[in-house]
Amino acid sequence: MSSQSFPQWMADIQARVEHALERCLPPSDVAPTRLHQAMRYSVLGGGKRVRPLLAFAAGELAKADPLRLETVACAVELIHAYSLVHDDLPCMDDDSMRRGKPTTHVEYDEATALLVGDSLQTLAFGVLAEGRLCDDPARQMELVSLLARASGSRGMAGGQAIDLDAVGKPLSVEELEFMHIHKTGALIRSAVQLGAACGNVDADGQDRLDHFGKRAGLLFQVVDDILDAEADSATLGKTAGKDAAQNKPTYVSILGIGRAREMADELKAQALAALEPFGPSAQRLAELTQFIVARRF
Amino acid sequence: MSSQSFPQWMADIQARVEHALERCLPPSDVAPTRLHQAMRYSVLGGGKRVRPLLAFAAGELAKADPLRLETVACAVELIHAYSLVHDDLPCMDDDSMRRGKPTTHVEYDEATALLVGDSLQTLAFGVLAEGRLCDDPARQMELVSLLARASGSRGMAGGQAIDLDAVGKPLSVEELEFMHIHKTGALIRSAVQLGAACGNVDADGQDRLDHFGKRAGLLFQVVDDILDAEADSATLGKTAGKDAAQNKPTYVSILGIGRAREMADELKAQALAALEPFGPSAQRLAELTQFIVARRF
Repeated sequence: MSSQSFPQWMADIQARVEHALERCLPPSDVAPTRLHQAMRYSVLGGGKRVRPLLAFAAGELAKADPLRLETVACAVELIHAYSLVHDDLPCMDDDSMRRGKPTTHVEYDEATALLVGDSLQTLAFGVLAEGRLCDDPARQMELVSLLARASGSRGMAGGQAIDLDAVGKPLSVEELEFMHIHKTGALIRSAVQLGAACGNVDADGQDRLDHFGKRAGLLFQVVDDILDAEADSATLGKTAGKDAAQNKPTYVSILGIGRAREMADELKAQALAALEPFGPSAQRLAELTQFIVARRF
Repeated sequence: MSSQSFPQWMADIQARVEHALERCLPPSDVAPTRLHQAMRYSVLGGGKRVRPLLAFAAGELAKADPLRLETVACAVELIHAYSLVHDDLPCMDDDSMRRGKPTTHVEYDEATALLVGDSLQTLAFGVLAEGRLCDDPARQMELVSLLARASGSRGMAGGQAIDLDAVGKPLSVEELEFMHIHKTGALIRSAVQLGAACGNVDADGQDRLDHFGKRAGLLFQVVDDILDAEADSATLGKTAGKDAAQNKPTYVSILGIGRAREMADELKAQALAALEPFGPSAQRLAELTQFIVARRF
């Protein structure tokens, strides 16, 4: 499909998204300067940008305008960044390292980190509402609504609430899956949906992409759990082994490392199978799926 | 204009908004139940609903459909409620009482309060995107964008950041005004704008309404400062005298109580003057302006 290698494509999109995020974040010399500096600190210069990559890969399949994809990629990444800043706070995971540098409340202070997360979420919706994403503005409104459902109490934030309640409790695999479908899965799924919605995919294709998004979201989490159990902090860029230390249920703690790896293989196969009918136009999504697994163990 | 008395009108709108909020908040028996219960606890059954009242009053002037006004009123009130929950957290104002009952992090816990605020913000944008507010969806998208600007780092959240930085510092009246135009003013102003946008107001009328919204927003804050200095906690429904105790600059601490009252009178006169050209159609907005001042001292 494309003559560009996957690593080149990925580096291109990452650079493109970094520039787009730089442009949509408030300048650090505009008041309130400390808040704006902290917002930029929390978003820029780090992260693999998995959600933006998924949005671009789905958008390529749908032949979407790259400028529109930039907008949805920024919106989803801003939601992700807000969730990390709040997740790292002392009352949540109390993490001091993220992406190889001090977390926002450590580098600044707790109150600023709270407002950073709040403001990044607002910015995500502002960005999505201001850009011209679809030819039909009614359709664009549906995208705002889609991002809200993926992020809110029945999506990502709800998953975090379930996560909180689960600390120290025995969970079944089904309960763990329910948690992750919300906590990580919903936003990853929305990245695929939003990217595809910037272009044209028929209803059948949308269904298949949505199935792919769900599998990819869960795959991402299983791999994350394996990584947390195995990697050291330097490789991870954040504090490793936290889940076990905090007595949090993970796929590894419930299934054991061997079965968790098998589950990752199964999810990868299901995700790739959902892409097959698209043929070569799904090349980047397939490569990304491989990447989610391969880069990590 | 209307045969209904102002107290009757106000009670009607408050009841209407309460029901609308009940409907748009997730049911408390839907998972994650604790989060959803805490969201309902934080929003329902309290508050004067000043922002919804302003949206309805501006909407009446613009002959807007009341169902549309319900939607914008809910969106603005959800943003306000999220900001209160986060503002009350220990890392911010560390307040234990709000609207006569324990604050969300006291009744539940800090992590839940954090997620409640996050989820209420998301819900505000979801509600605004899902309702049918304007005949032209492109115009509706502008309203989402307007709410984002009013709430984010260059609006309400930015005002809170300035407030944080101001603790213990001497501020000029101009600096205090800059803070409050963001912290309280931006959202109040947006309530008026959103309400009017659900109906029809010409460009000149919009400008005048916007001028009114800015004056009303500042009036509200000056009155709040006077109230905080004078009232006891029982009347206020939240901890009184906190501003002075926390060494926060207020209109009273900077200007003294007498000059602060004069300023309130001036702002009220300016707000009412901006409404005059509308004639009787601005009756409710004028009554609300009187109410903002009169109910409090």
